[in-house]
Amino acid sequence: MAKNPVIGLLGGGQLGRMLCQAAAPLGITVAVLDAEDCPAKQINQNSLHVTGSFKDPEKIKTLASRCDVLTVEIEHVECDVLEEIATKGVEVPSPDGHGTVMKRVPVHPSYKTIRLIQDKFQQKEYFAKNGLPVAPQMAIESGDARSASIEQAAKSFGFPFMLKGAKGSYDGRGNFKVRGPDDFETAAAQMGDQPLYAEKFVPFQMELAVMVMRTEDDDGNLKKVYPYPVVETIHEDSICTKVFFPPRNVAEGITRRAQKVACDVVSRLWGRGVFAVEMFLAGDEIIVNEVAPRPHNSGHLTIELVPQRSQFRAQLDSILDRVPSSEFSFIPQFPSALMLNILGGAEPQSHDRLVKLTTDFYHPHANATLQMYGKSSKPGRKIGHITAWGQSAIEQLSERTSHLIRCMDEIRAERIGSTEAVRESELQSGPTPLVAVTMGSDSDLGTLSAGLKVLKDFDVPFVVRITSAHRTPHHMMQFAAEMNKSGCKAIIAAAGGAAHLPGMVASEVALPVIGVPVRASVLDGMDSLLSIVQMPRGIPCATVGIGNSTNAALLAIRILGVAFPEYADKMKAYQEKMKNEVLAKDEVMLSTGWEKYLNRQA
Amino acid sequence: MAKNPVIGLLGGGQLGRMLCQAAAPLGITVAVLDAEDCPAKQINQNSLHVTGSFKDPEKIKTLASRCDVLTVEIEHVECDVLEEIATKGVEVPSPDGHGTVMKRVPVHPSYKTIRLIQDKFQQKEYFAKNGLPVAPQMAIESGDARSASIEQAAKSFGFPFMLKGAKGSYDGRGNFKVRGPDDFETAAAQMGDQPLYAEKFVPFQMELAVMVMRTEDDDGNLKKVYPYPVVETIHEDSICTKVFFPPRNVAEGITRRAQKVACDVVSRLWGRGVFAVEMFLAGDEIIVNEVAPRPHNSGHLTIELVPQRSQFRAQLDSILDRVPSSEFSFIPQFPSALMLNILGGAEPQSHDRLVKLTTDFYHPHANATLQMYGKSSKPGRKIGHITAWGQSAIEQLSERTSHLIRCMDEIRAERIGSTEAVRESELQSGPTPLVAVTMGSDSDLGTLSAGLKVLKDFDVPFVVRITSAHRTPHHMMQFAAEMNKSGCKAIIAAAGGAAHLPGMVASEVALPVIGVPVRASVLDGMDSLLSIVQMPRGIPCATVGIGNSTNAALLAIRILGVAFPEYADKMKAYQEKMKNEVLAKDEVMLSTGWEKYLNRQA
Repeated sequence: MAKNPVIGLLGGGQLGRMLCQAAAPLGITVAVLDAEDCPAKQINQNSLHVTGSFKDPEKIKTLASRCDVLTVEIEHVECDVLEEIATKGVEVPSPDGHGTVMKRVPVHPSYKTIRLIQDKFQQKEYFAKNGLPVAPQMAIESGDARSASIEQAAKSFGFPFMLKGAKGSYDGRGNFKVRGPDDFETAAAQMGDQPLYAEKFVPFQMELAVMVMRTEDDDGNLKKVYPYPVVETIHEDSICTKVFFPPRNVAEGITRRAQKVACDVVSRLWGRGVFAVEMFLAGDEIIVNEVAPRPHNSGHLTIELVPQRSQFRAQLDSILDRVPSSEFSFIPQFPSALMLNILGGAEPQSHDRLVKLTTDFYHPHANATLQMYGKSSKPGRKIGHITAWGQSAIEQLSERTSHLIRCMDEIRAERIGSTEAVRESELQSGPTPLVAVTMGSDSDLGTLSAGLKVLKDFDVPFVVRITSAHRTPHHMMQFAAEMNKSGCKAIIAAAGGAAHLPGMVASEVALPVIGVPVRASVLDGMDSLLSIVQMPRGIPCATVGIGNSTNAALLAIRILGVAFPEYADKMKAYQEKMKNEVLAKDEVMLSTGWEKYLNRQA
Repeated sequence: MAKNPVIGLLGGGQLGRMLCQAAAPLGITVAVLDAEDCPAKQINQNSLHVTGSFKDPEKIKTLASRCDVLTVEIEHVECDVLEEIATKGVEVPSPDGHGTVMKRVPVHPSYKTIRLIQDKFQQKEYFAKNGLPVAPQMAIESGDARSASIEQAAKSFGFPFMLKGAKGSYDGRGNFKVRGPDDFETAAAQMGDQPLYAEKFVPFQMELAVMVMRTEDDDGNLKKVYPYPVVETIHEDSICTKVFFPPRNVAEGITRRAQKVACDVVSRLWGRGVFAVEMFLAGDEIIVNEVAPRPHNSGHLTIELVPQRSQFRAQLDSILDRVPSSEFSFIPQFPSALMLNILGGAEPQSHDRLVKLTTDFYHPHANATLQMYGKSSKPGRKIGHITAWGQSAIEQLSERTSHLIRCMDEIRAERIGSTEAVRESELQSGPTPLVAVTMGSDSDLGTLSAGLKVLKDFDVPFVVRITSAHRTPHHMMQFAAEMNKSGCKAIIAAAGGAAHLPGMVASEVALPVIGVPVRASVLDGMDSLLSIVQMPRGIPCATVGIGNSTNAALLAIRILGVAFPEYADKMKAYQEKMKNEVLAKDEVMLSTGWEKYLNRQA
């Protein structure tokens, strides 16, 4: 391959545009086959572009003749010509200046993958044959046999079942849910003459997606597959509209399995590139829905979440075979992110207010960026997207961006002419606590109150809970686990007597835990102190003086200062104030004399 | 201003290119005046561009006639025509189709700022007049009076002093350090006929820079200035080559003052946009060196460090007056970042290996991205840059990217033909400790050793010192104060008996202090424990179990995890390992029986 290879890209929509965005800083040239003013060409000026349709075989050959490798931003391209280019080659002028020679141009992903993906029925037959989890399906006959064939499907799968067009559709368009025999006629009429298949309905609770990068040697042997983090996708009106990382309320075991399934799927395809594997989560089961052999809407948030190697960068790295030789993985740089599509609304300017909310967005612990595609607005058309990301859990991020989500839902409601579509945001919980305060019993609250006041004075967001180590052990552990995953930075735990709470919480979390010994009815608090401070090697508990919740709070604030300079500054100011107060008292004592001072105190 | 305003940009080099990169996702059109194939136009195709020089008044007017606002990527532009455009306007066809009308186009930053900045002497005279800290300077006469004038400067400032060209230079070019009378002739010859000034030499230990965004209302009244985080800049051969965030070994008080000075400077300029304020740090003093009225090399790392609003995005927001109405600040999303310029080397392909190292870069806690400018390579020319960023302190990030820095230094050495130029990376002073460990007496070292081993195992940079509260009280306090100002994040202090050290250190610093009670000769350590844990309200000391330095170290690491996710990850892995070890033992006890297990232990 040439030193500065030229990539030929079929299709110059938003995916192509973002691929070009990733290519330019790397010094990689991308030649695009699409209309003159397509989104990709707007941000990528060069003399190698071809004007025309990515379905036109002649144009594809022209593009190939100018490039070192071909790739696609859409799977609905002319596949036979890609096979011809990859295997027989295209005519190019001979290097010796006389006549022409044939130049073979690699196509990634392989034309074999693209051809398989173009037929959704065949795609899933292939996955099933390879032992991958897919929903049962059957082909539907065409012509006169169609009605009987649909009835047969109903008999096999029961109601509801899905009727799907095998070719040319994407984004869930061309699907029909058959709820009962009354639907047969409507379905047949609506689906028309296209090749159909029926699929058993999967009563899924969530849709998951995983982007996978696939590398291959020059002989077409799989080198490796690398999964991105799993995301949750939301579809409305058969269009992906929202993407959440991580999926909400999904156990880590499940996301790990989803990555495994996605890798298995992509291992069985051909060629280099990134692939989106869309899956249903039904109970604990993961079922493959479909695959896109290219960058995908569900991977847009990798631009911000995995800035070191977004899905677009990975597509370039893979097709140019420039993947680092060291073991590596796609490490998210933030604990949460979400993507919201900007869809054209009822009016050409409907989305303007959503754009404005996004460019205006400010929150100290969350961010939102805008990505417009340079496309004119049409109702329901993807014309841009928003990515939000944060230093906290996905629930808090959703809450902090709930005005964006609400605006998006309103624009949709206007477009589809229904106010019902405006869902109340699912995310109504309060602001992320930075400090969690917990006690073994409500009788400890008096001891804690001085510390709570300090947290309030320092403007620390905190939460106060009762979680007894002995009376509610599971509740305690669950609370600790939750705090560990949220944006919380330190935990204060108070307990008395056989004071196990602070140490038990410390066992569950990786955060610093501060223990406050509460003086119980006997032993003057010594029992509490020793129960808290004498933790075994391996699990530290930062212990403060007996009953001294003030110091527990101040210690928590010093810890926050390690991450957030604003708290370090406040602490310095507090210490300065404390010093000045004592100095002032000393001055008074010096000037009035200790005896008068004593009298005044009395 | 029109709803989708067009920005006219004078100059289409790398700064213009990155401005266009920021504009495209926001749907903002930028029309560029520069050569046909300049870096900015390569990634920005539209019909409004003007081909020509950004110093050509006619071309500037053509550009202005197509735009709603003008800005610059370089200050060496034709200023009078900018004033004319902003105040009198440019001829455009009349809306009624008959003849022409004059259209005024705002210029941001103001032509007044650009004019002032173009003359470095006048620039600093203005700053001095406004009470801003600059080095003393004096104008140097031209023609026959020049020699006498230079001698006069030597008399006023002493040796060495600086001779500088007032106009047309940037990146420290056109400066001459006059070391003694022997240099007079060389200096005069080398500087030629250009307007000169002399400046007192500032023996600075470091150069700092702050990007500042300035907003203004339509009447030219300052709204607000917003500083970015302070960075340290390294210049070699009069070119900025490396930028570090945060500055290494600089106290927070100083960086805050640098931001304040930068804001004061920019408040006194005119127009909207971002401005780079370059400063010297000399002792504790901050001295303004010069200002660039545009995005700047020292701000490139904001693309990754402040991804929600890079300096380029801020330039757009400011000139379009689209700054969020809420109070906001530029919050860095990572604790450290560094920028390395890719300069053309001795051969056109000299930089290839640095590019390859960057695209190959992989580290679980650090990242590196490449930004090539689409420029051909010439020796010393800025043709791209690398940004690295990480979840750790700048010292660790520098270490993790040291192979990139070394490669860069080698390319420079080849270019300037000197192997001496390969400096051992300046990061030899040993990394800043993140944890300081101190003890009252060397007899405590045995108790601390287990904890020190933990710190080592977790790869925490730390320092170990003896500072007795009673035998060396001043030394102790000085040590504590130093740690408080350095990048140190937590202090571990061990003491026995009347164990005052941890509490005294806690009184001096705003950092979390962890106390380890050491068992002294009597009372089994209870004296030490109570001396440490029972601190008065106001000064917390995080106490761990008697002699349990392991837990002190683990607590310090949990605290580091609050700021640096890599330590949180390591802590989770450690806890997982600990859990698995105990589970494995349980399994063995279950399968072998407790009696055999007991025998095996014996």
